[in-house]
Amino acid sequence: MSALPATTFGALIGVGLGPGDPELVTIKAARLIGEATIIAYFAKRGRRSHARGIAERYFPQCVEELPLLYPVTTEIPFDDPAYVAALAGFYEDSAARIAALLEEGRDVTLLCEGDPLLYGSFMHMFTRLDRRFRVEICAGVAGMSGCFAAARQPMTWGDDVLTVLPATLDEDTLAERLSRTDAAVVMKLGGNFPKLRRAMTRAGVADRAIYVERGTMADQKIMPFSEKTDDLAPYFSMVLAPGQGRRP
Amino acid sequence: MSALPATTFGALIGVGLGPGDPELVTIKAARLIGEATIIAYFAKRGRRSHARGIAERYFPQCVEELPLLYPVTTEIPFDDPAYVAALAGFYEDSAARIAALLEEGRDVTLLCEGDPLLYGSFMHMFTRLDRRFRVEICAGVAGMSGCFAAARQPMTWGDDVLTVLPATLDEDTLAERLSRTDAAVVMKLGGNFPKLRRAMTRAGVADRAIYVERGTMADQKIMPFSEKTDDLAPYFSMVLAPGQGRRP
Repeated sequence: MSALPATTFGALIGVGLGPGDPELVTIKAARLIGEATIIAYFAKRGRRSHARGIAERYFPQCVEELPLLYPVTTEIPFDDPAYVAALAGFYEDSAARIAALLEEGRDVTLLCEGDPLLYGSFMHMFTRLDRRFRVEICAGVAGMSGCFAAARQPMTWGDDVLTVLPATLDEDTLAERLSRTDAAVVMKLGGNFPKLRRAMTRAGVADRAIYVERGTMADQKIMPFSEKTDDLAPYFSMVLAPGQGRRP
Repeated sequence: MSALPATTFGALIGVGLGPGDPELVTIKAARLIGEATIIAYFAKRGRRSHARGIAERYFPQCVEELPLLYPVTTEIPFDDPAYVAALAGFYEDSAARIAALLEEGRDVTLLCEGDPLLYGSFMHMFTRLDRRFRVEICAGVAGMSGCFAAARQPMTWGDDVLTVLPATLDEDTLAERLSRTDAAVVMKLGGNFPKLRRAMTRAGVADRAIYVERGTMADQKIMPFSEKTDDLAPYFSMVLAPGQGRRP
């Protein structure tokens, strides 16, 4: 099939789905999903795909599905070489499965939670397939933008600097970054919550921060960070530390 | 009218419109606009409202419009006291005009470019009206998320830290912030471009940065930052410096 001219190949279409509320899907994303013939999505093995759940109402009546199932959970430390190797193999395999369909001239619509280019698994397919195939990207409402609205929290004013931090960083780095920014969004909480709590307290931002869990979804939980007494935070929860800049 | 119980008051509905492509409006935003009876939007005096242009196709057949016209342009330096005073008066007046309608029991739908809670003028109405009236907020695709997709640029990987910076900051601050982050988005370029160029070069990020003008719009311009030889940048252009973190 590789001898075919590239013009007969299909296209990979990465579609951002927004933060979780199916109504926060864009008009363009809903159209692209409705026109799809093959819909691919990532999911943890044994769990329902969150992306599929957001997009399902926009699926066409007849569509082929291509679930791409992560071999390991995100609870394994990110810097574990076994985790990185397993993920690399999984992404290679997923890209090969998509490429085989594209080579047959079929388009593949890949669903992406949030903004596909901000910590998105779509990027691992994009970098592997963009040189060989046509790839289209549809922007989506970032998870953090959904959380700002869910928490009703203005985040940046005037000249405020916003820092987006993964809680996977070490405590000293987190504390230093948090103390040197006007506004912050901390993502990827999960098991990093106790460490983050210490860093937030050291940086002096714990008192004005907000904890947001499953923002924009039906079962969202939003509370002042100081009132969250347990350390249980799903991986896709966030902490917001709003800016306090110039306000005419 | 202020003696009426609050339950008979109307609601302020802030609707994020996304980065500029009318198809990147969310399903929810299109619904809220279509249900509106009064649609308010900010605009520069003498110019067409950019927000109105994005949303117009979703307007209901009969709708009252409330244009809120900035008294001064954004070309005046932000730290000029006269500018801050003029803006404060303008926002007070705009909030009073909206409040008068809400007190009559009418809902006001306020259009907001991008994400309404990220450097958005909506926030100035929200802080002034939220205590007295019911305010709903609909998240939107942030301008920067639209630019990531327009530039086809994965921005943050793994543990990358993202810093969002207004180019209105001084050169030393910009250079220092740019040199100490994995990924950066620089907003509010305008007349700050020569200063930003020096800061980008000092921070060593000029070679991998991308310049995006009117991202997602029909006349968008995207180029490597190093190939932008003039200093002409509209206020709503952006510079992206992508992260280079862990990629399994």
